[in-house]
Amino acid sequence: MRVTIIGLGLLGGSFGMAVRRAGAADRVAGVDLDQATLDRARRLGAIDAGYLDLAAGVAGADVVVLATPVRSILEMLPGLVPMLGRETILFDLGSTKEAIVSAVAGLAGIGRYVGGHPMAGTEHAGIEHADDGLLRGAAFALVPPPAADEGAVDLITDLVRRIGARPVVISAERHDRIVAITSHLPYLLSVVLALAAENMAREESRTGEFTASGFRDTTRLAASNVRVMADICLTNRQPLLRAVEEARRLLDGLAAQIEQGNELELVKTLTQAKEGRASVSGERRTG
Amino acid sequence: MRVTIIGLGLLGGSFGMAVRRAGAADRVAGVDLDQATLDRARRLGAIDAGYLDLAAGVAGADVVVLATPVRSILEMLPGLVPMLGRETILFDLGSTKEAIVSAVAGLAGIGRYVGGHPMAGTEHAGIEHADDGLLRGAAFALVPPPAADEGAVDLITDLVRRIGARPVVISAERHDRIVAITSHLPYLLSVVLALAAENMAREESRTGEFTASGFRDTTRLAASNVRVMADICLTNRQPLLRAVEEARRLLDGLAAQIEQGNELELVKTLTQAKEGRASVSGERRTG
Repeated sequence: MRVTIIGLGLLGGSFGMAVRRAGAADRVAGVDLDQATLDRARRLGAIDAGYLDLAAGVAGADVVVLATPVRSILEMLPGLVPMLGRETILFDLGSTKEAIVSAVAGLAGIGRYVGGHPMAGTEHAGIEHADDGLLRGAAFALVPPPAADEGAVDLITDLVRRIGARPVVISAERHDRIVAITSHLPYLLSVVLALAAENMAREESRTGEFTASGFRDTTRLAASNVRVMADICLTNRQPLLRAVEEARRLLDGLAAQIEQGNELELVKTLTQAKEGRASVSGERRTG
Repeated sequence: MRVTIIGLGLLGGSFGMAVRRAGAADRVAGVDLDQATLDRARRLGAIDAGYLDLAAGVAGADVVVLATPVRSILEMLPGLVPMLGRETILFDLGSTKEAIVSAVAGLAGIGRYVGGHPMAGTEHAGIEHADDGLLRGAAFALVPPPAADEGAVDLITDLVRRIGARPVVISAERHDRIVAITSHLPYLLSVVLALAAENMAREESRTGEFTASGFRDTTRLAASNVRVMADICLTNRQPLLRAVEEARRLLDGLAAQIEQGNELELVKTLTQAKEGRASVSGERRTG
């Protein structure tokens, strides 16, 4: 099986490394806009061969994996589709799914498509942070379009299993609604904290001395790649705006309990958050 | 020098271990409501001797360190003060300072007091998580009251240095305003995320499968000890409510940019957050 990965950033690079390590493909080709990235991907073992030219890179591929930011995927699709063989499976790793699944549905000529989204990542971007273990043990959302080609879904499911990830089949709409809460809202609140701290640092030069591990952890996502995150925000608009509305409602409730000095209700809410977090993330409850 | 620590939780226990490891005191006594905690603290090397009785525990102490949640400190002060020797220095590790400094100022008979707040902690509570390295390298806020006893401030500053922490002298008002942004607001937003995810999990049973390291990090603070955090919220009310107001304003701005699809402004805001976070927390800029 021949795999071509388009976009050799953190995710595309890590995916290539994992596929090659697992021996899940006979050949992994990579396409990127930057020759230095292609060279680095080859040295790191993420690809067997690199291409600046899209058509040359996807020629003869059994699976083409789109691993660029979401809006790059959307821009690339119309030009890419005519280059694909009739049997080629198109797969993508975009963080939001509805926009991509809809775009694919609107294009004639894509016979075999499966959407994907691995629930893994770090705030670091770029091939230099690629890691063949990034996807190991991670949930990997698979989003087959309506009337999907079963053979394509089976092949991609098998590929995901072979690199050590856990396939989770789900619809685009449900995926986008859930990750708005578990991934995109955490990013926005992390951005809010970073901005609030920066504003405070402008009036109080010693602000930086009063940041500890709690601040670093809660603002880590604010260090994410801006292009990737802007694309996510702009292609998951409605679910994300609903998530912001929910956050506002919850924050207002907390503020009211604090303002009124309503200890009983405040303790109840904080306890519910502590227990909810443990049950959602499946972590052992602590002190 | 004889030190008595009142409250042998994560912070009191870690402080005791650090003092003993540094040889900064001839004897460290501990007072707690729970005999099992005292036994454990002794086994872990956090104290030389444990007392259930407050008066017996503080008898002969040169420095008495209050290491309970903030409102326990406030409740304890009036009864404790008459037990202290004329030369005894009272020190506290409470996370908010204005309430404690005011309470001390209102009590006759406290000759030598210094407020403190180490910028270190974890979401784990209790002596079982105490760690003699927890405070090493951490900023340690020192809040001398107006007209403080200079000898007391010098002695406490020296003690903080000897356990490897970094003394940062600051007023109670500035301290509370800064940590409202760098520590208490991160906690509240972490609580909001945990509650939002729990609500989502109620409609979507698969929510837990879509949590990755970003969710775990941004909600880690929501797993903090509820009693400790409720005390912080209720004793730093005005600065915290202003911080919530600021968060609301910033979140509304982001939501508007997303709703309008204003890519240019959104990218500008996300970039500012990324750079602000790096400059405030003094971390190297990444990807």
